[in-house]
Amino acid sequence: MIHVYTQIEQGHRWLQRYRGRPSVFACLLGFTATGLIPGISAAGATPEDRQYTAIADAEFLYKGPQPQPQYPLPPLQAGASPVLISRAVVEALGIPVYLFNAGLPQPPTVPVIDLEGAPAQCLSGGNALPLATVKHLWEQGLIWGQKLAASIPDGYLILGECVVGGTTTALAILTGLGVPAAGKVNSSHPSCNHAQKWAVVEAGLKAFRSRGDEEHPFQDPLHLVAAIGDPMQIAVAGMAIAASRTCGVMLAGGTQMLAVYALMQALGRQYSLSWEPDQVVVGTTRWVAEDPTGDTVGLAETISPVPLLGTGLSFAPSRYPQLRAYEQGYVKEGMGAGGCAIAAHLTQGWHQEQLLQAIEMLIERC
Amino acid sequence: MIHVYTQIEQGHRWLQRYRGRPSVFACLLGFTATGLIPGISAAGATPEDRQYTAIADAEFLYKGPQPQPQYPLPPLQAGASPVLISRAVVEALGIPVYLFNAGLPQPPTVPVIDLEGAPAQCLSGGNALPLATVKHLWEQGLIWGQKLAASIPDGYLILGECVVGGTTTALAILTGLGVPAAGKVNSSHPSCNHAQKWAVVEAGLKAFRSRGDEEHPFQDPLHLVAAIGDPMQIAVAGMAIAASRTCGVMLAGGTQMLAVYALMQALGRQYSLSWEPDQVVVGTTRWVAEDPTGDTVGLAETISPVPLLGTGLSFAPSRYPQLRAYEQGYVKEGMGAGGCAIAAHLTQGWHQEQLLQAIEMLIERC
Repeated sequence: MIHVYTQIEQGHRWLQRYRGRPSVFACLLGFTATGLIPGISAAGATPEDRQYTAIADAEFLYKGPQPQPQYPLPPLQAGASPVLISRAVVEALGIPVYLFNAGLPQPPTVPVIDLEGAPAQCLSGGNALPLATVKHLWEQGLIWGQKLAASIPDGYLILGECVVGGTTTALAILTGLGVPAAGKVNSSHPSCNHAQKWAVVEAGLKAFRSRGDEEHPFQDPLHLVAAIGDPMQIAVAGMAIAASRTCGVMLAGGTQMLAVYALMQALGRQYSLSWEPDQVVVGTTRWVAEDPTGDTVGLAETISPVPLLGTGLSFAPSRYPQLRAYEQGYVKEGMGAGGCAIAAHLTQGWHQEQLLQAIEMLIERC
Repeated sequence: MIHVYTQIEQGHRWLQRYRGRPSVFACLLGFTATGLIPGISAAGATPEDRQYTAIADAEFLYKGPQPQPQYPLPPLQAGASPVLISRAVVEALGIPVYLFNAGLPQPPTVPVIDLEGAPAQCLSGGNALPLATVKHLWEQGLIWGQKLAASIPDGYLILGECVVGGTTTALAILTGLGVPAAGKVNSSHPSCNHAQKWAVVEAGLKAFRSRGDEEHPFQDPLHLVAAIGDPMQIAVAGMAIAASRTCGVMLAGGTQMLAVYALMQALGRQYSLSWEPDQVVVGTTRWVAEDPTGDTVGLAETISPVPLLGTGLSFAPSRYPQLRAYEQGYVKEGMGAGGCAIAAHLTQGWHQEQLLQAIEMLIERC
């Protein structure tokens, strides 16, 4: 039920170590105006809608189905929000949830820890975030990673995200770090919009580099994030580095978390930080790992040595068309869905049937 | 007759400074087994032929047309070797020529300065050159750059290259340095084989990174060249950095010299080297700069602030089909051809007619 796609031995050791162990789920909400580019993301039908996707997802993760949500989940024709998976798991397993606001354009409607970041500008300008904001988020990430880890000394921390347009900022960070990621990332579309993403990334890196080296040394990962990243990436990188020193860490996501992992490697080298790669895995869904229009496994192998885990969860047998849409390539991942599903297998021994049933029961209550 | 495509003001200042000034031409010969991949390059019809392209070009540059060359130029149906342009210029203008062997599989047939490098293995293995060889070539480049510059205190040094498969090693170095170069480079083909090049680059960077960080820190440009570069790149980077301190430098080539420029930037930062970017331009041909199947100008803008110059030389009015083939996109550049043509405009005031006539007279003698 849990597939190990890369770094097989290391991945199995990690699973062995944390089988039956407790977890906590920290989900970081962020925003980049990159997500407003027409067609860049399917996580919300219009650019206007996509400003509220993270807030609606956070509300649902925290409160579950409500008769009158302040921000309802986006309409479900093209596939339900992946937060259904995350919510079903944390509700059934009683996993503690911490929501973090790393930088949203609107205040969330549920209690969150405010990291006092900021939403990013479109990465194509090469000037996404103030450097001071990036440094602040990085420090906050390190502080909170240590705190969260202290709460589960014998377990693991699941780190999820919601950043609409975040696979494009991921491609930008990977490219800026020298990882050949073009054509390999995923998207919320059934067929990945590689050319559109690449054009945005090219424009951003060009704008960044054309400002010259001295003020903006583009080998410094913090400057790179400030130029073309988003607020979630740097905060999660800090949390994962700090937490890895004392507990397990599952970066719950696909392309975006592979970019965070590459960022952790680069930050570790740049600032000679100690962290424990053996404690860290990336956990995602089958729909991401096996997306024929991207190459997540190839990307993970390039970023090596990162173990990429995937839940075997299938929606093919579901009676709900908004779940079956995942099998046609819609949505795929988000809000730590893949990681939460893996936690259900790992901690509770849940298989396909139990997991699907929990998710379908949640939909029924909507 | 000389077009400045990027960094317009800086480019014109450079041209103003060196108009009517003397130049010397150093041409570096190198080899990478990447050039043997079927279809990767058109500089030689078969992989077997491409092992001798640099040697044949060097022989022609040094000796001009001979009744019985040891290594004849490749057959000319798909466009004549660009060394015809270089030879026509250095012969007519009496430009001193220095040939350097940075790493060839066979000994050249004409006098060359042996830098005691080595041919590179195919970059797809991520293990192209021994690190000691890269360091040696880098040091030799710095030494020779200073020597050559001392020979023309009031002029400029033209640095050309012949490396079959070199646009693919260029793409690899650019990508590894975090420059979004995919889809932007050129080739000796009329329509650039981007997908083939990218697959090779991905494989090389993946192999390099999978060996882990500590022995092979992939933010160190010397390690990057050792993994996925070729022997010409690092030697030319050293020469250009050292020479820029006391004379003008024209990197004569397209994609390959843009990669060398990016390498110079990275080496300068990594080792806190002093060099004079104001003294350095990249000079190439119209066929490269305006190739609709690549994006050399966009690439130069990304690597900013590098002035990209191009000769306006056209072969459209030529009576030789092997020259007119350039106008259909064959060959384009090599052996410093574009830079030598620019030198003819700059030093001697030559226009299209004189340059074309000199080249055609050389063909007649073949």
